[in-house]
Amino acid sequence: MSAAVQPQTQTVWDGAGRRIHMQEVGMRDGLQMEAVFVPTDDKIALVNALSATGLAKIEVTSFTSPTAIPALKDAEIVMREIERRPGVAYAALVPNQRGAERAIESRADELNLVMSASATHNMANLRMSCEQSFAALAQVVATAQAAGVAVNVSLSCVFGCPFEGDVAEAAVFGWVQRFADLGVGGITLCDTTGMAHPAQVARITRAARARWPGVVFTLHFHNTRGMGLANVLAAIDAGADRFDASLGGLGGCPYAPGASGNVCSEEVVHALQLMGYDTGVDLPALMAAAARLPALIGHDIPSQIAKAGERLALHPVPADFEAIRARALAR
Amino acid sequence: MSAAVQPQTQTVWDGAGRRIHMQEVGMRDGLQMEAVFVPTDDKIALVNALSATGLAKIEVTSFTSPTAIPALKDAEIVMREIERRPGVAYAALVPNQRGAERAIESRADELNLVMSASATHNMANLRMSCEQSFAALAQVVATAQAAGVAVNVSLSCVFGCPFEGDVAEAAVFGWVQRFADLGVGGITLCDTTGMAHPAQVARITRAARARWPGVVFTLHFHNTRGMGLANVLAAIDAGADRFDASLGGLGGCPYAPGASGNVCSEEVVHALQLMGYDTGVDLPALMAAAARLPALIGHDIPSQIAKAGERLALHPVPADFEAIRARALAR
Repeated sequence: MSAAVQPQTQTVWDGAGRRIHMQEVGMRDGLQMEAVFVPTDDKIALVNALSATGLAKIEVTSFTSPTAIPALKDAEIVMREIERRPGVAYAALVPNQRGAERAIESRADELNLVMSASATHNMANLRMSCEQSFAALAQVVATAQAAGVAVNVSLSCVFGCPFEGDVAEAAVFGWVQRFADLGVGGITLCDTTGMAHPAQVARITRAARARWPGVVFTLHFHNTRGMGLANVLAAIDAGADRFDASLGGLGGCPYAPGASGNVCSEEVVHALQLMGYDTGVDLPALMAAAARLPALIGHDIPSQIAKAGERLALHPVPADFEAIRARALAR
Repeated sequence: MSAAVQPQTQTVWDGAGRRIHMQEVGMRDGLQMEAVFVPTDDKIALVNALSATGLAKIEVTSFTSPTAIPALKDAEIVMREIERRPGVAYAALVPNQRGAERAIESRADELNLVMSASATHNMANLRMSCEQSFAALAQVVATAQAAGVAVNVSLSCVFGCPFEGDVAEAAVFGWVQRFADLGVGGITLCDTTGMAHPAQVARITRAARARWPGVVFTLHFHNTRGMGLANVLAAIDAGADRFDASLGGLGGCPYAPGASGNVCSEEVVHALQLMGYDTGVDLPALMAAAARLPALIGHDIPSQIAKAGERLALHPVPADFEAIRARALAR
């Protein structure tokens, strides 16, 4: 840093040690999209490796029907056999009452429930009207509360629906209110198919935080149209400090074949750390965990950091550099 | 947009009609990396298509040695035969005096000169010390000035060097000063290998603009580590309004095989327009131009927008949607 440059007043570009909580969704949101079944022991080992990196939360698996998502049919074993680190929350997605019972039995720290703010997306994806979903989830919330287990609701299509287009903010906030009324402590605003843009993110995040100061909001972005990190920064500028991200950038969007899915954990951590934010994450350890993925899933990962390395991962000069220099200086 | 949400004061997230000038570098920075020779007529047709999209500047080609960069050996013909639109600047890269003469002869509106702020990168890439490069470019500047042709200098490795690591801001600004002293009107601050991060971009852009208010600065980012768009926004927040970008995301970095290269023109335009900036660019026309690329270069393009479409490019509901809904509502 040169003396010629003046320090600037604090902006979103200057993290100044502010804490950002990173929540890993690759084990669930990522692996559920994969064609191969990752062996249970490898899943457990990967969660254990992730636990050691300083992530705030790990969504470990999904207690869904094994026939619906065979990739995660080992939910009980994984949840039971991972090593729990103090300070890390081990969450599980649960689609319904049966899933909630299984997750609670397996000692999940938090149940993550899902419904869509878009009626069409909810019907296409969950095969229920939004009201039907809400009624079912209200029961799950009661079950979790009775068991003393934390609940988070991930609201899909907050920033747009691939079928409907824009989703009215009044609809989004109506669902937030109804879950908040049930005593749900955490709400994730999900950009399910990468439609969010920074102007919208800043506006919705700011409004949500102002209206429900007691709710812990997480932002969940996809990089489908290249706006993932920009959306993270727009959300931070609006006060958000919790983000879902996926190891290696795993996870995808069935409506955009070949495009990126979830924002990549190591890309987000890499950028935020360079900007002076405190993610609490050991980046080399996270990159080492990501490096295990290709062998487990049988293909390359979208992570740009996996390809390019950290910013200061330097390269050797060309082999003939000294000869080049000698010739140049002789001119 | 719902009535429930308050308008926020103007921030970088809210473009509010502010003008951003988009400068296309794919024809030069992109094609020079390609193994295939794109036929001259196809290049001309593509530049003509780009001319109609509202881009502020197009770097058409490079007047370098045909043996050094055979992909652009048709520089004269392309530069001469394209249709010039009023309001679009047609630039060409020139490495030396001979290139400058060829470019001026071919009626380039602007000569883009290149040197690196990193001594090691300059030597490895241009086979000269920085002082040798500067002396040669000073001659080229004089030639351009005598001919009444505008000059821009693209300074490589401003945000880091793949061999040296961080490049001292004093070194960067020293070269800016020396070119400004020559009367060079435009300077491009280049993140040659994707090492820039938003905190650094905000700081350097702000400092440069404050120190040289008479210089027109362009920012040139690569998306190698996923920070491209975030860097564009950090630069805008620091006052920048001109950006290089590459159609389809063409161009790459030899030090990060498989990683993205230049920021993608249609991704940047797509994001900025959603945020309310006025890029002046017709996005569908730009996307149509990008769609020509795979056939010309023989491979897929990095563009996420090419894969996913615009934000509101909607998808049909599943074929069995009505049956799903009938079953759900019958419950």
